[in-house]
Amino acid sequence: MQEHTVKAFDEDITKLRGLIAEMGGLAEVALHQAMEALVKGDDDLSELVVKGDKKIDALESEIDKLAVRIIALRAPMADDLREVIAALKIAGVVERIGDYSKNIAKASREIGQRKHFEPLTLLPAMADVAGDMVHEVLTAYAARDPILAREVIKTDEKVDAFYDSIFRNVVTHMVENPATISSAAQLLFVARNIERIGDHATNVAEMVHFAATGNYPADEED
Amino acid sequence: MQEHTVKAFDEDITKLRGLIAEMGGLAEVALHQAMEALVKGDDDLSELVVKGDKKIDALESEIDKLAVRIIALRAPMADDLREVIAALKIAGVVERIGDYSKNIAKASREIGQRKHFEPLTLLPAMADVAGDMVHEVLTAYAARDPILAREVIKTDEKVDAFYDSIFRNVVTHMVENPATISSAAQLLFVARNIERIGDHATNVAEMVHFAATGNYPADEED
Repeated sequence: MQEHTVKAFDEDITKLRGLIAEMGGLAEVALHQAMEALVKGDDDLSELVVKGDKKIDALESEIDKLAVRIIALRAPMADDLREVIAALKIAGVVERIGDYSKNIAKASREIGQRKHFEPLTLLPAMADVAGDMVHEVLTAYAARDPILAREVIKTDEKVDAFYDSIFRNVVTHMVENPATISSAAQLLFVARNIERIGDHATNVAEMVHFAATGNYPADEED
Repeated sequence: MQEHTVKAFDEDITKLRGLIAEMGGLAEVALHQAMEALVKGDDDLSELVVKGDKKIDALESEIDKLAVRIIALRAPMADDLREVIAALKIAGVVERIGDYSKNIAKASREIGQRKHFEPLTLLPAMADVAGDMVHEVLTAYAARDPILAREVIKTDEKVDAFYDSIFRNVVTHMVENPATISSAAQLLFVARNIERIGDHATNVAEMVHFAATGNYPADEED
């Protein structure tokens, strides 16, 4: 590339990374707010999360357009092209993480009675671990750090263990309190959505690893 | 582009479209087999679906690599670039559809007793509608047909109506049969996964519409 093209490419990539950081930040906040809405039964906050997801979707679309423009105008090669493609893929996964938070916010509105629900203390703890995974994987992305990316992948086991425990807990609760089954079913969905956030933070971690090293970490069953 | 480059690009695009058709076909079969395993309680078939998902993932990776190679070697412009990027995005969504079928196959193995479960007749009907959406959207992709893509988007309402009906049905079943709650919870997950397949067929339809016309159909709440 010519020198001015290299400079323009670097500026474009910096912008692309900034948009992904912004998008990831919004997804993190969405998860946090969705869990707060769930625990407190705050339907206004739920609504905010559902509406806020449009901003995340809009950022994905902006990232897609910028990535296409970079490819078309700068014709990046090898590592640079891999980085742009990784950004495109990562934006898609972060959008998915935003969707899961939106699902949680929607489930929250379907729950009536909130007292005596033990899962309501376990779920936020589970969400904290998954939220940390999202945060760490974005840090790994920003720092192009494959080691941190591998740590994120490892943390997913904790999220899965939480999921199994909450599933058993909710089913027991359902058996003992048939009147709350419909609400409790929503908690199962919430647990499943958090579990999926962990899976997708893992997917992003694999892409970060790929963008930084050119290969994927050893394949794992998901 | 030079004439030989145009020819090479056309060959590449044909290959890319062929890989997506193959991937979509596998995802359709996976959903069909997962539902059959669910209804019959056939754990061997479930296992086949779970293992088969690796082939879908491998195809996505092949599509990604080919798309990157096309961009790097052929430097496509405007519509052609949009088509390659759409292929990359569509492959990501089809992989997601494969994941949902894998989830259904996994849920199937967690279900004990299958008798007297009314949802076991409703769920396959729901899956047929969602499976048709996947089939139609791939046809729309192959034919670059934005009208068919819009029809797919419209069909998603049927899938959502099925979901609401099955949710109420399963909850009623749980209340009346507390001993089967854990199995019934898996049916809720199955319903949710089918509902998500409908959502993602809708997403692909939007991308097909975009690739064919340069704009997205009017935004809808998902």
